[in-house]
Amino acid sequence: MSTKDKPSRLQARLPRGFADRGPAEMAATRRLIEAIREVYELYGFEPLETPAIEYSDALGKFLPDQDRPNEGVFSFKDDDDQWLSLRYDLTAPLARFVAENFDRLPKPYRSYRFGWVFRNEKPGPGRFRQFMQFDADTVGAPSAAADAEICMMAADTMEKLGIPRGSYVIKVNNRKVLEGLREALGGASPLGDAQWLAVLRSIDKLDRLGPDEVALLLTCGRTDESGDVTRGAGLTNEQTDTILRFLGFGPRGDGSGRSVVDRPALNDPEASIARLTAGIELGPAGQQGITELQEIARLTKAAGYDADRIAIDPSVVRGLEYYTGPVYEAELTFDIKDESGRLVRFGSVGGGGRYDGLVARFRGEAVPATGFSIGVSRLMAALSLLGQQVEAQELGPVVVLVMDRERIADYQRLASRLREAGIRAEIYLGAAGMKAQMRYADRRAAPCVVIQGSDERAKGEVQIKDLIQGAKEAAAIASNQEWRAMRPAQFAAREDELVEAVRRVLDQHGAARRSPTP
Amino acid sequence: MSTKDKPSRLQARLPRGFADRGPAEMAATRRLIEAIREVYELYGFEPLETPAIEYSDALGKFLPDQDRPNEGVFSFKDDDDQWLSLRYDLTAPLARFVAENFDRLPKPYRSYRFGWVFRNEKPGPGRFRQFMQFDADTVGAPSAAADAEICMMAADTMEKLGIPRGSYVIKVNNRKVLEGLREALGGASPLGDAQWLAVLRSIDKLDRLGPDEVALLLTCGRTDESGDVTRGAGLTNEQTDTILRFLGFGPRGDGSGRSVVDRPALNDPEASIARLTAGIELGPAGQQGITELQEIARLTKAAGYDADRIAIDPSVVRGLEYYTGPVYEAELTFDIKDESGRLVRFGSVGGGGRYDGLVARFRGEAVPATGFSIGVSRLMAALSLLGQQVEAQELGPVVVLVMDRERIADYQRLASRLREAGIRAEIYLGAAGMKAQMRYADRRAAPCVVIQGSDERAKGEVQIKDLIQGAKEAAAIASNQEWRAMRPAQFAAREDELVEAVRRVLDQHGAARRSPTP
Repeated sequence: MSTKDKPSRLQARLPRGFADRGPAEMAATRRLIEAIREVYELYGFEPLETPAIEYSDALGKFLPDQDRPNEGVFSFKDDDDQWLSLRYDLTAPLARFVAENFDRLPKPYRSYRFGWVFRNEKPGPGRFRQFMQFDADTVGAPSAAADAEICMMAADTMEKLGIPRGSYVIKVNNRKVLEGLREALGGASPLGDAQWLAVLRSIDKLDRLGPDEVALLLTCGRTDESGDVTRGAGLTNEQTDTILRFLGFGPRGDGSGRSVVDRPALNDPEASIARLTAGIELGPAGQQGITELQEIARLTKAAGYDADRIAIDPSVVRGLEYYTGPVYEAELTFDIKDESGRLVRFGSVGGGGRYDGLVARFRGEAVPATGFSIGVSRLMAALSLLGQQVEAQELGPVVVLVMDRERIADYQRLASRLREAGIRAEIYLGAAGMKAQMRYADRRAAPCVVIQGSDERAKGEVQIKDLIQGAKEAAAIASNQEWRAMRPAQFAAREDELVEAVRRVLDQHGAARRSPTP
Repeated sequence: MSTKDKPSRLQARLPRGFADRGPAEMAATRRLIEAIREVYELYGFEPLETPAIEYSDALGKFLPDQDRPNEGVFSFKDDDDQWLSLRYDLTAPLARFVAENFDRLPKPYRSYRFGWVFRNEKPGPGRFRQFMQFDADTVGAPSAAADAEICMMAADTMEKLGIPRGSYVIKVNNRKVLEGLREALGGASPLGDAQWLAVLRSIDKLDRLGPDEVALLLTCGRTDESGDVTRGAGLTNEQTDTILRFLGFGPRGDGSGRSVVDRPALNDPEASIARLTAGIELGPAGQQGITELQEIARLTKAAGYDADRIAIDPSVVRGLEYYTGPVYEAELTFDIKDESGRLVRFGSVGGGGRYDGLVARFRGEAVPATGFSIGVSRLMAALSLLGQQVEAQELGPVVVLVMDRERIADYQRLASRLREAGIRAEIYLGAAGMKAQMRYADRRAAPCVVIQGSDERAKGEVQIKDLIQGAKEAAAIASNQEWRAMRPAQFAAREDELVEAVRRVLDQHGAARRSPTP
């Protein structure tokens, strides 16, 4: 604290990783949520809202980063010494809700939820400790048809949001297939949990790093451009070649420039699935996973969702520990420039999968469930890159200036008349003069101001000043003197025609400055 | 835990004071919020959203119950050992936001916010630890015109929600006037803070208990019907008579049956204000409060808000400590039956006031501010009593039955066709037979089901069963046999006319079961 500050004065600030949101961002979020909601309701999903606080044991700890099992969640003790936590996702609360209301729910139960979740993690750019998710889940349906439906709904959502076909893909994989790979890799000496986790994390980086770097991660490790060292998973070259084959590449090369582009295209699900088993003995669980992938591919194709929308991709891992079968990821496939100017893919805006064990924690029997979660903030960022969510300043309210503070009731009446006609209007409530009031109206993005001094009052008139037109004309005017002589974009109207006169101004500008809805 | 339970099985339950919310309650909340939002935007208020977590010192402790200054707030330490809290209202975060962004905000700054707030208090019936508030505030306007505007907007909101004129009133008082009363009561020996708080709490109970019981609370205390004893504030009889006069009653009677009904009506603001000063020497601060009340009364009356909508009421106290001038309360004046069958007033659904000191905590200079907060859940309860928010079950989605699990892709296509026409539709995703699928469709409130067995398939047809009409006809059918013969409310349609056929059923029932929007 500097010596100038009074020690008694509090600093107004938010904790790291939290943010305020203003009108433009809120309006964009609202449009996004309404669009997603519309798609999900068409599919028969119904809304549910659970509280932000739950018993810690009911939520469990299923966070992506299992290195730090005791971190990631905001927790505190209740009066009765039981631990409470802020929800860190919308899946764990759903499992608790389904278990608690199992008998009265229709089964299968399709539900959607959206709201804030909280992660007590290190915040960074674009990485918040409070962020919004939008989830859809089907509980009680064991079949791949439920997974296929979620994937198709995810694809429909992307298009509803105005993301063109070809600019997104829903990628599907299966945890059972990955488990089959684990068995195949282990042979006589199975891979331990820690090593397997390192393998999954390496595979997960394929899109970003390409196969040669992933091969380094799978074996001896890798040093990135900034000098950070990532330890390798310690696989043999033979094991690594098996994984590269599984991912659709030939055996490991010499590291000279081969990239993810050389990977076989994902546009033929049957060929993708065939590659998964080429030269790998997956075992019974893995084969079951293959069957599920085939069924999802068959159903989505039959419904008209080709592989440009829903594709089989063995590199999809998903971080959460609880997935037990199909896993999906919604990826935006257009390129953006990263901080260093390189073109990179925008990447994942949502994901999910089947988690048959989560409700079982409460009920002691497996309850099949599958779901999909959208990261709302990340998707908003993507839409703004696509120019879908133009943050044009919306038109503000009409401002009635206060020329005579004794007559404030009259100005209020003028504003009321406008409101009764459905026009947003406010009177100036401060103590400042004309000039400051005009500045205020500008800041409020007012389309026009209404002025009634004693002259206008005597004539039963008001002056209406069109601020949008005025700004244009002002650019063409040379001097203050000329300005006062011309009074650009200002006209008189009879007081009893106030509403009509203001509406004329609004009609003229309304469409131009309003931001488009996707 | 009973010995039957496996110790490993978690109990699915929520902490006390937290609740899940289903589709009907969510839809009602949404309608309510949209209606309030519309009114506030007409007045030129703009939305703001602040995070759920703030630094504890930034929020301060301004909870109603000052007996337990360290309770009421959910708090926990951040990694850097600083205390964080969940917001307990939407006013303290606004003060922090305004202080943090002071220079870039238009002044006066009109803002509205809604969202969850958290109170770590003892929950009870209808009393939650997470509940929703909807606030509007004007920051930077010192004049009574800003207070008057908030009161008029509150009245408009009640009417927008369908609460008829005469069934609500916005009551206005002034903390300065109450402070004047305190001075007048104290005379040579001023009332201490604790005693004054007891006096305010007693006055606050006037509506519920009537003047004689309040007189007991002001003097020697009171024992309620359940035997609970409330200590008295320890005033003399003379002081108590002064307060009763201030509240609009004659001197204290003998306790025999006089009720709040005997109080002079509040329908004449000038008379109400005149009574406040009759025989009481309020002092300069109190006189300033009287002037503000007069100005609010003048402005609201000039705008057409008579005392049946906005009234001066000296018994309005408001719990929060931070109010510095006018205080308001939105009260619903219709009677409901309480637990014991007695008619009581529904009471307060919101309130607020002027709090010129709250932003000053950060800026070191007073920033005038005034605002109003609606308790959304309580208002929803009121609207449901008024029959405004009929919780009629909304129509569910159309359910396409799965007659042949091999043909699920075909059923999916039927559902897709309906969705493409904007009709909510789902396929049955479980593994059960026809009877269970029909039960499922009933539970989902499906208006109709679509059936296509091999017979229909061969003919290029579907069967559509109208479940609403069917339920009506079923009541008139005697036997299962008759039922099967008649197949009530079921008809065949060509598969390529599916959409039109379903739409005919929806049109017939849609309007009837949809709940009205206020």
